[in-house]
Amino acid sequence: MINRFDFSISATDGAARRGTLKTAHGDIRTPAFMPVGTAATVKGMTPEAVRETGADILLGNTYHLMLRPGSERVKKLGGLHKFMNWERPILTDSGGFQVMSLNELRKIDENGVIFKSHIDGKRFELTPERSMQIQNDLDATITMAFDECTPYPATEEVAASSMRRSMRWAERSRYAYERRDGYGLFGIVQGSTFEELRLESVSALTDICFDGYAIGGLAVGEGQEEMFRTLEFTTPALPTDKPRYLMGVGKPDDLVGGVMRGIDMFDCVLPTRSGRNAQVFTRFGTVNIRNARHAEDQRPLDERCGCPACRHYSRGYLHHLFKAKEMLGSMLLTWHNLHYYQEIMAAMREAIENGRLADFALDFYAAQEQGDIEPA
Amino acid sequence: MINRFDFSISATDGAARRGTLKTAHGDIRTPAFMPVGTAATVKGMTPEAVRETGADILLGNTYHLMLRPGSERVKKLGGLHKFMNWERPILTDSGGFQVMSLNELRKIDENGVIFKSHIDGKRFELTPERSMQIQNDLDATITMAFDECTPYPATEEVAASSMRRSMRWAERSRYAYERRDGYGLFGIVQGSTFEELRLESVSALTDICFDGYAIGGLAVGEGQEEMFRTLEFTTPALPTDKPRYLMGVGKPDDLVGGVMRGIDMFDCVLPTRSGRNAQVFTRFGTVNIRNARHAEDQRPLDERCGCPACRHYSRGYLHHLFKAKEMLGSMLLTWHNLHYYQEIMAAMREAIENGRLADFALDFYAAQEQGDIEPA
Repeated sequence: MINRFDFSISATDGAARRGTLKTAHGDIRTPAFMPVGTAATVKGMTPEAVRETGADILLGNTYHLMLRPGSERVKKLGGLHKFMNWERPILTDSGGFQVMSLNELRKIDENGVIFKSHIDGKRFELTPERSMQIQNDLDATITMAFDECTPYPATEEVAASSMRRSMRWAERSRYAYERRDGYGLFGIVQGSTFEELRLESVSALTDICFDGYAIGGLAVGEGQEEMFRTLEFTTPALPTDKPRYLMGVGKPDDLVGGVMRGIDMFDCVLPTRSGRNAQVFTRFGTVNIRNARHAEDQRPLDERCGCPACRHYSRGYLHHLFKAKEMLGSMLLTWHNLHYYQEIMAAMREAIENGRLADFALDFYAAQEQGDIEPA
Repeated sequence: MINRFDFSISATDGAARRGTLKTAHGDIRTPAFMPVGTAATVKGMTPEAVRETGADILLGNTYHLMLRPGSERVKKLGGLHKFMNWERPILTDSGGFQVMSLNELRKIDENGVIFKSHIDGKRFELTPERSMQIQNDLDATITMAFDECTPYPATEEVAASSMRRSMRWAERSRYAYERRDGYGLFGIVQGSTFEELRLESVSALTDICFDGYAIGGLAVGEGQEEMFRTLEFTTPALPTDKPRYLMGVGKPDDLVGGVMRGIDMFDCVLPTRSGRNAQVFTRFGTVNIRNARHAEDQRPLDERCGCPACRHYSRGYLHHLFKAKEMLGSMLLTWHNLHYYQEIMAAMREAIENGRLADFALDFYAAQEQGDIEPA
């Protein structure tokens, strides 16, 4: 019976790592992409379908779940895994990012955040201790420390002050977190795009000691170049024996660039949200299926893709579904996008095992630049 | 190679019949319920899921498909079966009912109907000949004759005049219909709730000779009692060796009453539309999952139901999905309702085979009257 929260690395290729994170709810193959199941569902997908795409772990949003249906209710109904019929690992965020991005009426002080629900205006408080309690009620496999996501751009002074508060909150999170076998707590590195602040944050977190380290405060408008630059001085400072999670990232090329810079885990709403909006990610770049050029196109989105949208339907049909505002359009394109994201992750895992990640990346960028081709 | 359009009856029980309709796209076990796939998709379901519920045949709406994406476009993309990834039989209605119910700006004369699209205001014409052409382009397994659905209530004079025009259109439909092996054309009996008119209509249609006979102009507000009374003098007049299809019906108890009065086929939007609106049909009557009493209920909708919604989720979770306006709520309840409808049909087919349909009906009504029970 191995039920520990254990991370092992079986291969490396440059800064990239091929690992396995063992948890109470099963193994996570890394590098991993986590589909987002905000309100205890990956929008438009059954959990069986999510699993078929190859996902090992989902992300749930503490902020949304604490407001509706409420973490106590999820607990009464058996925890988030049972509630949403996903037995595998679930990571929950701390709620901090969304309290701050979705609420104008909020008050932040050293203790935490007081805010009003965007659903019914009811008053809520979120502190490191309360966030740990909620994530425990939800039965999250991976709990995130409560932090403040520093707005971008921020002066070095603002970024430093915000990061240092997050580090104090990280310590309170660690203290309040109830350790359980096969479960883990991740700290979140902040410090905006300032090298000294990021390194100070890494140092503070590693002193506290977490089961994994997330890099927060990126993908907030700084651009890919600046994000990669920040990763390049941040990830080398992180412990090599713990998983590294880049929060809220990203586009397919962000994933490739992130893995090459030592990232093990990602989450992003992009594949699901884009799918609902007729935008498809493919080997040949992005395609908007609403475009009139697809209306009579008998070809699948991508002939080499094995997802149901590509195996069974023409572009003409998918185009029709979006024109007719049919749910199946969102369902199929979400499925495709998640499938494609998982395919990229699987290909990168294999490439790392074979020491061929640089070749994979060259092929990947070449195909993306080629773009989607019109029918002959 | 049997590819004929052949209907055989293997058992009867009272007026009820257990049959098989062989078509170019596969067999239809009767009595059959046809889920409605208006715009080339059963809303919120993959075709694989529809098939898993036990459906042998779907219904497509000629009116919607002629407007969007257009029947010529469906033809270019391989026909409706290939277009929507449903290889099994498809029945298309004639378009007449929806032209008249969805359009205020329409002009009906002996030739047909001229109307403006509710999508873009473009002018369209629908005649018996055009309806046959469109249904042929769609590659419908079963084509419906073009008719006028007599409004309810109607005076005997209005009903007679409308029915007689439909009979002239039925003859033109028969003449324009292109016969193909394994494909069939159904005529539609009209005459409102007047016995003499219904019998005159049956007589006119059987003179023309169709591959099946539909009963139209019911479930339009006359109520179940009046509908059953109309069936009781109409179905006995129909040929025994052809399938009988009661259009646009109905609630679960309408299906049971219809089968007991000799009906072989049904279609209705009720299970799919209700599912999207949180209304569930169960052995114990209807349940609205939005009701607050379900919020912390750990029980499934129906413990004895084998659908994914009942096997994997609590009422509390389904309630949450509707409160949070999540697509998965509509998807799961649609699935449940279609599963339940097909379960009723399968149970009736088995009961007819065993000469136990009256017993089945008694049990069915008793359970429905018992109602959904609160948790202890």
